[in-house]
Amino acid sequence: MSEGEPIKCLAAVAYEAGKPLTLEEIIVEPPKAHEVRIQIKYTAVCHTDAYTLSGVDPEGAFPSVLGHEGAGIVESVGKDVTNVKVGDHVIALYTAECKVCKFCKSGKTNLCGSVRATQGKGVMPDGTSRFKNLKGEALLHFMGCSTFSQYTVVADVSVVAIDPSAPLESVCLLGCGVTTGYGAATKTANVQKGETVAVFGGGTVGLSAIQGAKARGASKIILIDTNDEKKQFGEEFGCTDFINPKKDLAPGQTIVEKLVEMTDGGLDYTFDCTGNTKVMRDALEACHKGWGESIIIGVAAAGAEISTRPFQLVTGRVWKGSAFGGIKGRSEMGQLIKAYQDGTLKVDEFITHKRPFTEINKAFDDLHAGSCLRTVLDLSK
Amino acid sequence: MSEGEPIKCLAAVAYEAGKPLTLEEIIVEPPKAHEVRIQIKYTAVCHTDAYTLSGVDPEGAFPSVLGHEGAGIVESVGKDVTNVKVGDHVIALYTAECKVCKFCKSGKTNLCGSVRATQGKGVMPDGTSRFKNLKGEALLHFMGCSTFSQYTVVADVSVVAIDPSAPLESVCLLGCGVTTGYGAATKTANVQKGETVAVFGGGTVGLSAIQGAKARGASKIILIDTNDEKKQFGEEFGCTDFINPKKDLAPGQTIVEKLVEMTDGGLDYTFDCTGNTKVMRDALEACHKGWGESIIIGVAAAGAEISTRPFQLVTGRVWKGSAFGGIKGRSEMGQLIKAYQDGTLKVDEFITHKRPFTEINKAFDDLHAGSCLRTVLDLSK
Repeated sequence: MSEGEPIKCLAAVAYEAGKPLTLEEIIVEPPKAHEVRIQIKYTAVCHTDAYTLSGVDPEGAFPSVLGHEGAGIVESVGKDVTNVKVGDHVIALYTAECKVCKFCKSGKTNLCGSVRATQGKGVMPDGTSRFKNLKGEALLHFMGCSTFSQYTVVADVSVVAIDPSAPLESVCLLGCGVTTGYGAATKTANVQKGETVAVFGGGTVGLSAIQGAKARGASKIILIDTNDEKKQFGEEFGCTDFINPKKDLAPGQTIVEKLVEMTDGGLDYTFDCTGNTKVMRDALEACHKGWGESIIIGVAAAGAEISTRPFQLVTGRVWKGSAFGGIKGRSEMGQLIKAYQDGTLKVDEFITHKRPFTEINKAFDDLHAGSCLRTVLDLSK
Repeated sequence: MSEGEPIKCLAAVAYEAGKPLTLEEIIVEPPKAHEVRIQIKYTAVCHTDAYTLSGVDPEGAFPSVLGHEGAGIVESVGKDVTNVKVGDHVIALYTAECKVCKFCKSGKTNLCGSVRATQGKGVMPDGTSRFKNLKGEALLHFMGCSTFSQYTVVADVSVVAIDPSAPLESVCLLGCGVTTGYGAATKTANVQKGETVAVFGGGTVGLSAIQGAKARGASKIILIDTNDEKKQFGEEFGCTDFINPKKDLAPGQTIVEKLVEMTDGGLDYTFDCTGNTKVMRDALEACHKGWGESIIIGVAAAGAEISTRPFQLVTGRVWKGSAFGGIKGRSEMGQLIKAYQDGTLKVDEFITHKRPFTEINKAFDDLHAGSCLRTVLDLSK
């Protein structure tokens, strides 16, 4: 029994921006009160991990244990933990849900204030880390999850138990990308039957927004991507049209003009899943006058700003954003798991690559290939 | 009887940007099918008239008959007009409502597509003008209203009949400013009891947004204006706090920081009633994370753009706009008139100045005085 004891295990440590992760044994301390230690079974690599590792994330701090799209089994719990128990199958939540803060009780947002400040600093709520390397040097946490380690410690508000019959290898993807896109379409935008949708960027988030729009019965779902390889993915998840703005526009035509022409005035909903602020503007301006809503999901480069003429908003377009698809992780993950088990939510289809944990640096390379949606790492290997 | 005949009457013609209006007799042609000729009794001068007259409005065209906040009596109607009849008391609507176009039938917006294209060009729906000067030169229409003339012709979709017991001298203000601000708070934002509101700019629109928020039972209503004279107006219409950002901030403190501090994290709703794009950004960023909505009402300078970091939206703030307060002029004006008659909607309190029509150029000067909200012109004088 490891309960109450430090655990030595394999982790991928980010020591320095722009450098590969270092695979090495680290020490994971036992959970304190209101904390949970999880044996991570599977984790995927998301663009946000790559963003932070690249060094351009102004909040990125090193050395740290990255990773935020992971699933595993509860190894032990600290004092006063009531929401999960040893042996539970769980998904780590980078968007916590405490159910008691002003945000959680507002009924208006899935953002939770309970651990935000410490999470942003890479420490547990008591201000310290549970990770150290074999030299005794403390390693920072990341996004409240740190799934690039065979064991991790998270706050109890940052973990949700799931149906143990759901395969962890697949549902780890519900920890970020799939939930983010699907929720943005079905919850933040709340797309209705017959409405029109455009999705900029055909990665996991964008394709999940497409499947959310399709689930709602959208009449037209347009995927825009500069990589033709995304067309097939888009169709698999439900897009009705694909535009490659590098090839499919008439001479002098803008993507906004093309979309407005295709939809008799513009889209009911558009989603930016690129993080490119120029694309965010196009997404807004392609919305229908009077009611079109554009939802920003992508993470922009540090310091980058969005702009438009205010007339775009005065004439009825709405600019908003979505984090983790507006989904409350502890209250609503069960519904997503069930939708996956029922076959109404595609998850397996995003897993284009599988690798042993030891090949994690190759998984970062995979991200840049148009043919890759998600690489899932098996932490047992 | 003038019906079917051209009418010679006094009008204030804008011949050139940046120059005073020319008071002279003009010819107003009879209304064609689906058109209405109105004897304008009272008109107010709004900042949008001054904006166009100044020459900075890229869509401004001359020579034209400006004015869009006016009320009068139907003198005659063209063929197929069914919604108003001779003798009806009416308000001209720069935001038309045809009830049959895609926009009107959407249930999502008060913008109407029926006369938009021709209205923007300063002509009637058939592409021609009903105004000419005594030299025979055609004069353009403005915003579908042209209330700076003793007689005007508007499309039937651009006019609403009202209770004849309502004083035209007062309710002309419902043609723009009062409705715009009140509707932005009660309809576009749909402020609820106990919510918090900040209004940037204490002119007629801003003060009406304040009275809308007060009518809904907002718990805190903060007026921000750089002119201390606006404090008293703000309190009269219902603000609970007043901030002059030139005087009331701590050293180094921004208005956003001040507002966030005053409201435990930010406002539920903010309204820009200034047209200043820097203020629009402050208004957005002063919104509460997770749910705060900022509504742009002011008209920005040509080419000016709004900007922010997309993170502001991803963390739950919403950026939208409002035109004519989201109010459908023909369907909803009656409720506003009734609210005025019941004493729940202040209108008379905005009339700080009254002048004969012949002093219209002085009314433009009045606009620049902090002590002026609205100058109402009596077209009979």
